Amino acid sequence: MLNKVLTHLDENIEKSLERLFSLLRFQSISTDSTYKDECCKAADWLVEDLKSIGFEASRRDTSGHPIVVGHHPGPSDDCLHVLFYGHYDVQPVDPLSLWEDDPFTPSLKEREGDEVICARGASDDKGQLMTFIEACRAFKKEIGQLPVKVTVLCEGEEEIGSPSLVPFLKANKDELKADCALVCDTSMWDVDTPSISVALRGLLGEEVIITAANRDLHSGYFGGAAANPIRILTKVLAGLHDENNRVTLPGFYDGVEETPLHILQSWNALNCTAENFLGPIGLSLPAGEKGRSILELVWARPTAEINGISGGYEGEGIKTVIASQASAKVSFRLVHKQDPEKIRQAFRDYVRSLIPADCTVVFKGHGASPAIQLPYDSPFVGAAKDALSQEWRNPALLTVMGGSIPIVADFQSILDMETVLVGFALADDRIHSPNEKYNLKSFHKGQRSWARILATLAKTGG
Amino acid sequence: MLNKVLTHLDENIEKSLERLFSLLRFQSISTDSTYKDECCKAADWLVEDLKSIGFEASRRDTSGHPIVVGHHPGPSDDCLHVLFYGHYDVQPVDPLSLWEDDPFTPSLKEREGDEVICARGASDDKGQLMTFIEACRAFKKEIGQLPVKVTVLCEGEEEIGSPSLVPFLKANKDELKADCALVCDTSMWDVDTPSISVALRGLLGEEVIITAANRDLHSGYFGGAAANPIRILTKVLAGLHDENNRVTLPGFYDGVEETPLHILQSWNALNCTAENFLGPIGLSLPAGEKGRSILELVWARPTAEINGISGGYEGEGIKTVIASQASAKVSFRLVHKQDPEKIRQAFRDYVRSLIPADCTVVFKGHGASPAIQLPYDSPFVGAAKDALSQEWRNPALLTVMGGSIPIVADFQSILDMETVLVGFALADDRIHSPNEKYNLKSFHKGQRSWARILATLAKTGG
Repeated sequence: MLNKVLTHLDENIEKSLERLFSLLRFQSISTDSTYKDECCKAADWLVEDLKSIGFEASRRDTSGHPIVVGHHPGPSDDCLHVLFYGHYDVQPVDPLSLWEDDPFTPSLKEREGDEVICARGASDDKGQLMTFIEACRAFKKEIGQLPVKVTVLCEGEEEIGSPSLVPFLKANKDELKADCALVCDTSMWDVDTPSISVALRGLLGEEVIITAANRDLHSGYFGGAAANPIRILTKVLAGLHDENNRVTLPGFYDGVEETPLHILQSWNALNCTAENFLGPIGLSLPAGEKGRSILELVWARPTAEINGISGGYEGEGIKTVIASQASAKVSFRLVHKQDPEKIRQAFRDYVRSLIPADCTVVFKGHGASPAIQLPYDSPFVGAAKDALSQEWRNPALLTVMGGSIPIVADFQSILDMETVLVGFALADDRIHSPNEKYNLKSFHKGQRSWARILATLAKTGG
Repeated sequence: MLNKVLTHLDENIEKSLERLFSLLRFQSISTDSTYKDECCKAADWLVEDLKSIGFEASRRDTSGHPIVVGHHPGPSDDCLHVLFYGHYDVQPVDPLSLWEDDPFTPSLKEREGDEVICARGASDDKGQLMTFIEACRAFKKEIGQLPVKVTVLCEGEEEIGSPSLVPFLKANKDELKADCALVCDTSMWDVDTPSISVALRGLLGEEVIITAANRDLHSGYFGGAAANPIRILTKVLAGLHDENNRVTLPGFYDGVEETPLHILQSWNALNCTAENFLGPIGLSLPAGEKGRSILELVWARPTAEINGISGGYEGEGIKTVIASQASAKVSFRLVHKQDPEKIRQAFRDYVRSLIPADCTVVFKGHGASPAIQLPYDSPFVGAAKDALSQEWRNPALLTVMGGSIPIVADFQSILDMETVLVGFALADDRIHSPNEKYNLKSFHKGQRSWARILATLAKTGG
């Protein structure tokens, strides 16, 4: 039975690619309100596609971008029920000048011997999301039914902290509750080694806007006397780390646990050195806390990063201006039991302590999600590990995600449901960067992987 | 004779305003190559206007924006010869959203009881430049000749450090050499008190571009391990000042002289407090070196200012990116005998010392002009002081300019000629800012002032 499904996926890869291209053409950039309509179009497309497989699907409008929900029955009333989660929104594309092609005109290219799908969202998360839907489609076409009951939940606000999702989960608990959740928004360990993420870093976003004078000033008249908000901002930001690259905010490390030695040793066995982790991005020196391995830094240690900074004249040439305002976007990756709201408060107190009395600061909060840790011994994780190990050359690894997928914490707290994180992205997919890609092999074997996982999960029972 | 000229100026103020409006309509933003053609058009307009007064005028092309030169004979062969300097280029207009009207559609408005000319360049320097040309026109119309021999030199690159001007002065020494230079690009002390600037701060501009990874990174994958160029940049910039707001670059204060006590006392008598200097721009606390008065800070002390900073995501919302590049524009106001090239080198050495070995930094130099100090006892300054004191309510003050007009140093070194700096701008003209204006009174009495100065200078002989 499974073999027929896998063969169907092999024989229909071109058609599945056409469908993915259709979805990739929507400019569904959630953070920029200019593209609101494109988000709606992407949602509508998903509704129609789910309906074509026999899902009872609908677009559910929110105060932000719409959410798509689809339900498909399983082979029996007491079968396993899974909730699959994905997101159709994408990151902005700037700087556009660095893209080789239009980010929303997808194409298949050969790159270093691999066929890759090039477009914004190819990997994060439209390509990944469609691997699951294609697996469902193949079951439906070949077998006439799905091996488990499936609910699909796709949101359009993942890249902006999912503001509408928690209220939606709370309002639709009974409809969305399943035995476990499946998420396809993570990476493989390498091209031959699938991985299941058992922990995720949390994320806290803050925007700081400092205002000094009530207008831009000529530095010749006022330079030396008037406060410069860029200078204040650089002082604030430069003070966030000490000489060992530790974050200086009081209480920042409260709730951070030391990773057990045997776990650190298992990570060390992966031979992830500064050379092979940072080499491909043109770097060689770990920039985080001193005395920690690369994998510990990105998997088990918290960070403070400046994601953007802006102020004064940024055009060609020079302008002798003292700006009125300067701003920065800062985010913190959180681990273990760090409390996002306590850290937000500590950050704001710290910034305020450095603002001169005649200047002002305004903060904008952008999401706050704690880190989460999943059980290593879950039967759903075990089923996924078995299924993935059959599809790929190497057995599946249990790893940690450096990035944040806050929905996993919400599934746990609101729907009392654990989540299995499986994804087929690769470290060089350039997600969030110009020239994002998704390997055709990831797309194809990802579909096959989901077919195997669904078949294996069906055996675990409801 | 002078009275006829002054009356002519009074009666023709509207016509002179129309001419100024024509000049203000050119979008002659020198720093942005998009507006190259507009700079040429402004230059051509000036050539035609000078010709209409009887100047032998021409546009002189350079590798940058053109220079305009016009010559008009005096009443006799041995009469005094003055070189008048102005610039037709203007600063960029961003942020455009803060302008009440289009910056290149000049208009006359009432503001706080004064009639003011609103447009980019109204004050800096098109309005100021035209005060002199209108004075010449009135002499020509009423008397049939000018009281002294006049050469007019207008450039289009003042706002970008005048790269073409020095080569032009060197190549045309004999043509441009005069007995003294007159420059109209400075301010009055207040609405009733004209001033002649006897010292100018120098200016050194530097652009710093730091590159870390070879592309933008996802902070979830790489945060904690990969270098963040914004973080490096903020550390570099935050270290430029110590806790007393002194610049930390080694050797930065070499050549800075303590201002004589009697000069400081004469400035203190002007009662320029933090309240009345900073109050109008919404500030109250001097941000420069501790223990110095406001006027000492802006007239006699050097500064380091960050004029612009840019990096990462600057759009709406947040993006969890680690940028590949970050950049800043920094400028230094120099005084007395500070050596710009030595300071440039010290700055670059300092920045390089903070760049991690796997990151790179690129510098772009944007002009380097030392400060200059003019003689207090010059007969030309004396003549201008007498003439100005007759036109305005209060006698003229001898003051210092916080801004830079590098051409004055070049006139001294290349043409062996001292410069008299007279200007009618006001501190609230918003030059380099949105909603730049020039008071109609400045424009009108500025014309009358130049008529008086030319008449007085004629008596000093050639």
